[in-house]
Amino acid sequence: MAMLRSYVSGRWHAPSVEGAPLHDAVTGEEIARISSQGIDMAAALDHGRRVGGPALRELTFHQRAALLKALASHLREHRDELYALSARSGATRTDSLIDVDGGIGVLFGYASKAKRELPNDHVYVDGNVEPLSKGGTFVGQHVATPLRGVAVQINAFNFPMWGPLEKFAPAFIAGVPSLIKPASQTAYLTEKLVELMLASDLLPEGSLQLVTGGAGDLLDHLTGQDLVGFTGSASTAQKLRTHPTVVRNSVRFNAEADSLNCSILGPDAVEGTPEFDLFVKQLVSEMTVKAGQKCTAIRRALVPASLLDAVADAAAARLAKVVIGNPATEGVRMGALAGLEQREEVRRSLKALMEVGDVVYGSPDRVDVVDADAERGAFLSPVLLKADPDHAQPHEVEAFGPVSTLMAYRDAGHAVELAARGAGSLVGSVVTHDTDFARDVVLGVAPWHGRVLVLDRDDAKESTGHGSPLPMLVHGGPGRAGGGEEMGGIRGVLHHMQRTAVQASPRVLSAVTGRWVTGAPRTETDVHPFRKSLRELRIGDTVVAGPRAVTLADIEHFAEFTGDTFYAHMDEEAAAANPFFGGRVAHGYLVVSFAAGLFVSPEPGPVLANYGLENLRFLTPTFPGDELTVTLTAKQITPREDQEYGEVRWDADLVNQKGESVAKYDVLTLVAKQ
Amino acid sequence: MAMLRSYVSGRWHAPSVEGAPLHDAVTGEEIARISSQGIDMAAALDHGRRVGGPALRELTFHQRAALLKALASHLREHRDELYALSARSGATRTDSLIDVDGGIGVLFGYASKAKRELPNDHVYVDGNVEPLSKGGTFVGQHVATPLRGVAVQINAFNFPMWGPLEKFAPAFIAGVPSLIKPASQTAYLTEKLVELMLASDLLPEGSLQLVTGGAGDLLDHLTGQDLVGFTGSASTAQKLRTHPTVVRNSVRFNAEADSLNCSILGPDAVEGTPEFDLFVKQLVSEMTVKAGQKCTAIRRALVPASLLDAVADAAAARLAKVVIGNPATEGVRMGALAGLEQREEVRRSLKALMEVGDVVYGSPDRVDVVDADAERGAFLSPVLLKADPDHAQPHEVEAFGPVSTLMAYRDAGHAVELAARGAGSLVGSVVTHDTDFARDVVLGVAPWHGRVLVLDRDDAKESTGHGSPLPMLVHGGPGRAGGGEEMGGIRGVLHHMQRTAVQASPRVLSAVTGRWVTGAPRTETDVHPFRKSLRELRIGDTVVAGPRAVTLADIEHFAEFTGDTFYAHMDEEAAAANPFFGGRVAHGYLVVSFAAGLFVSPEPGPVLANYGLENLRFLTPTFPGDELTVTLTAKQITPREDQEYGEVRWDADLVNQKGESVAKYDVLTLVAKQ
Repeated sequence: MAMLRSYVSGRWHAPSVEGAPLHDAVTGEEIARISSQGIDMAAALDHGRRVGGPALRELTFHQRAALLKALASHLREHRDELYALSARSGATRTDSLIDVDGGIGVLFGYASKAKRELPNDHVYVDGNVEPLSKGGTFVGQHVATPLRGVAVQINAFNFPMWGPLEKFAPAFIAGVPSLIKPASQTAYLTEKLVELMLASDLLPEGSLQLVTGGAGDLLDHLTGQDLVGFTGSASTAQKLRTHPTVVRNSVRFNAEADSLNCSILGPDAVEGTPEFDLFVKQLVSEMTVKAGQKCTAIRRALVPASLLDAVADAAAARLAKVVIGNPATEGVRMGALAGLEQREEVRRSLKALMEVGDVVYGSPDRVDVVDADAERGAFLSPVLLKADPDHAQPHEVEAFGPVSTLMAYRDAGHAVELAARGAGSLVGSVVTHDTDFARDVVLGVAPWHGRVLVLDRDDAKESTGHGSPLPMLVHGGPGRAGGGEEMGGIRGVLHHMQRTAVQASPRVLSAVTGRWVTGAPRTETDVHPFRKSLRELRIGDTVVAGPRAVTLADIEHFAEFTGDTFYAHMDEEAAAANPFFGGRVAHGYLVVSFAAGLFVSPEPGPVLANYGLENLRFLTPTFPGDELTVTLTAKQITPREDQEYGEVRWDADLVNQKGESVAKYDVLTLVAKQ
Repeated sequence: MAMLRSYVSGRWHAPSVEGAPLHDAVTGEEIARISSQGIDMAAALDHGRRVGGPALRELTFHQRAALLKALASHLREHRDELYALSARSGATRTDSLIDVDGGIGVLFGYASKAKRELPNDHVYVDGNVEPLSKGGTFVGQHVATPLRGVAVQINAFNFPMWGPLEKFAPAFIAGVPSLIKPASQTAYLTEKLVELMLASDLLPEGSLQLVTGGAGDLLDHLTGQDLVGFTGSASTAQKLRTHPTVVRNSVRFNAEADSLNCSILGPDAVEGTPEFDLFVKQLVSEMTVKAGQKCTAIRRALVPASLLDAVADAAAARLAKVVIGNPATEGVRMGALAGLEQREEVRRSLKALMEVGDVVYGSPDRVDVVDADAERGAFLSPVLLKADPDHAQPHEVEAFGPVSTLMAYRDAGHAVELAARGAGSLVGSVVTHDTDFARDVVLGVAPWHGRVLVLDRDDAKESTGHGSPLPMLVHGGPGRAGGGEEMGGIRGVLHHMQRTAVQASPRVLSAVTGRWVTGAPRTETDVHPFRKSLRELRIGDTVVAGPRAVTLADIEHFAEFTGDTFYAHMDEEAAAANPFFGGRVAHGYLVVSFAAGLFVSPEPGPVLANYGLENLRFLTPTFPGDELTVTLTAKQITPREDQEYGEVRWDADLVNQKGESVAKYDVLTLVAKQ
């Protein structure tokens, strides 16, 4: 019998013991055996820390992003191999798409986010420079640096590919090596995934390890620099969270646990509206996709009392059309649960729900299947219940399968109250076209939710749906949902880094962050900094230009030329009555245009274009007769990995003849590398 | 004997039992007795949730900030009452300043940050709009809303005023009620503080409660909407963190535990340099301020091997001059520890350190004191040790008093390695004037630190020092330091709020966030939006203006007028060779100036000034003959509580005759309320 392997300490490890059997969810056949026996967990962690971490940290954020993108393309080329195997877990083609393509999408998403939102550098600067003193000699800024440990990623059985990938991507971008431990039931899929990832030859050794089978003493060896990311049941989350080593070393622990997510139908969405249909369609889809084995699935459907029966009827009719059976068979819409044990667990929960609820559709014990054996395969009928919302069970008992409970609410406040009874959810949705109802309910339920979707006729076509976490949005929720946050774009990267407040003189802070900050030395040389290529340019390189007088004629001419005849520029009396000016002033656009005229170096050279301005503030009005001097200093230099140029951010400080700052802003340019 | 009271469920509660005695740290006299007996903890939490939370949430961020500022002023007026009492805890006047004025400073700091960085609104919008679809009908954005529970704040004995205030301020700004539980030893100071805070009549009922004495069953009643903020020992942190209710409900738990902070002297800082003196002075100051009872104090002083003796001598000489005794007496520089038990604990730790270290200065058993009884008062001499850094004890045993250990390092890498052996610290400092050493060490130790100070001749005068957390910087550290983060400006506010990803159509997202977003409806009326007062203006109000042609003559004229004769505007051949243009193009400054000329409404009216631009991006070049049309839409409206005007952020979208976006930016204006 095939043994699943692990990849630890730089090599594939095959256990020498018999191991536990894993079964095909559809046929019940044994697929492989699994055991982590013989793995030296401490050595694996050490390998990640000593080999993987340093290799990753040598790369910049952009270099890691480029590798991640290449990895995503590599997996996309091999996804058919993953699909084929995925069917054995009970997944239909659509289910596999979510798992495989969804996971690949997270890699692409992180690669793209990192390139756009992170510097091409090793240090992330978090937030603005904080002035800490009157004289400006003492300032602060936060930096984020990669934790020097390993991100231990413990995944759930339901997404053996998306799950590991959504945890791996932000860790990789952060520069932190991953050690993946999949749930046993579907670990054969994660093994295949990791095999493909390693075969790409894109990943630095030690940046990715895999442990199939039990975690053994893995957690005993964690330090305060390691992380644990967990997805699974609340009870396992609690066990891991209170592990003595995790607690003693304050190991960063992120949990994403199943929750009793709700979907709320607006009172405007009566029968015949697009929203009524969207609600029913989404409910049935969330019940049946992945056979309802999604931690984000809708477990509680809250509808206005007057619409309860109509929704029940419509949902039942739609459920009746769902073809269940062998996921490899054409036309099958819902496959099997992950295994027979899983089905038993769902049946137990269903029993608790049925104590207080009436079955609207389905049965826990009977299901018609196509091209499969309903008993040997882990098949279960979708079951929709209807219950009084005052009962505890529908808000507390989660049947992790194709099961949902319909409940009636009285008004928006009642709907919010019922939603909150889930005590913390990954996601909720509101289906309405009424913006007032949407606002009240979204802001009302937000404290209990990591994500809230509002579905209506306007976004339905493009909506990714209630159940789909996205790489740019946080995934996680408070309370019962585990209290964690995954993904959320760069937030998920920063989760793997230590934020440190650095306090220093501007000179030293600049040296630490690699960004010029106000007060740091400026370098003025004979060569205009616009004449320096990206490779020659250094932060602090400066040009001072001016003075140039601004005359009343300039102001009037600019007004006439541009059409901007705002009274503060044109009418002395009216301008004097303005609380900020006290007299005619130059246009803000005029002074920054003059500044550009002062600092520009007109001949062709490495500066290719000014692509924007940021943080422009007009600080002191410019009056006729004032004289302007501008100081332009290279602040941040970002070479592009895949281009012959990069971005240079310049600090512009425009002052008048009294030395007062007239305007401060950042000028954004593209500069050729050579 | 006086009983300390608690303030819970809207009234002061005096226990009817005898309680435990609290002693004057200087004289040993009994000050008061303490007990939380008879307090209904569940009712107190419920009071916070039902009364305090809703009252706070009715206020906007700016309204809460105004109350916090008024509260800070109120406390400042009454600080003499706090100083007087503070001496009884062993604190000198300087120590009290840190505790009292430091705490008041946090309130002022948060009031000011909130006003500048938060909207005058109830919802915080976190990050940009995330495009989730090609067609733009489905978008996402994160919002933060206040958790609906109580922030339980468990404080340490060493800062009975600063401690509670630094936890209260961000919770209050977030809109979350606080329940303060001080450490018993110095709870009489916190009781006085809370009495003054409540007497101000500024705080909504239920937003501030106080429990003096044991926590009883307080934690048993926490939900996933409550928070625990803890400062104190690592062992207590571990106990609270694993409390079954905290774990079961994923209660947001933040710990700030004592750590073995280091200070590192640079190899450049030889005797005779300002940095050498700064290092010694800071070391002695951190050992003796608050009698070394600061979780941020320097426990490990790392110096180049060649400077070890010189530093030891200089520090010993300086320590010898520190006058110890009754803190109320003139000239006394160091007072008593918080109590006799505390002294015993320090002596026990000292013993462990002395097993591997030599005493450079001081004695655990002998101290000369002024105007006090060295045995009845909790006095202890500062003790400086010298040890081989290979021993474990100096990196692991924390003597929470005037104790520090000197150790020699070989090079920058070794210094980083030794710093890391603290396994996570609140703060570290580097004393050097060498930017390379500063950068290498700061970035090297950053993963183990919440804050790193670089001290040198340039910032020394204005530096707030190694031991002082500041409201705008994070306070907390990984691993041994508890793994938490407090303050850090708005980060500390967001810790008390739930981040929720909202997915919706632009129309609905605008309604939820109160900010206009691209794709949401625009309202064009006969009235130009610049003619509407802040009260009349609505998000989405729009003016469309243009088209205006841009001619070659315009470009040449603008170049000549401003002096901006960059070749891309002036030289067809050179411009054609530029990779982005392909021909002469208009200046970015010209097109935005023309846009202003199009959208402006020149007559005096509610729009008072354009105070800035943000996020300006030039997206498509403008060629001679192109025609520009601008659409300006009110995006965000921020009335100022204390002014007759507010801020309006406008979305500007400038397009050419083909409908291509030429530039996108935000225009920032001040608009009168009436």
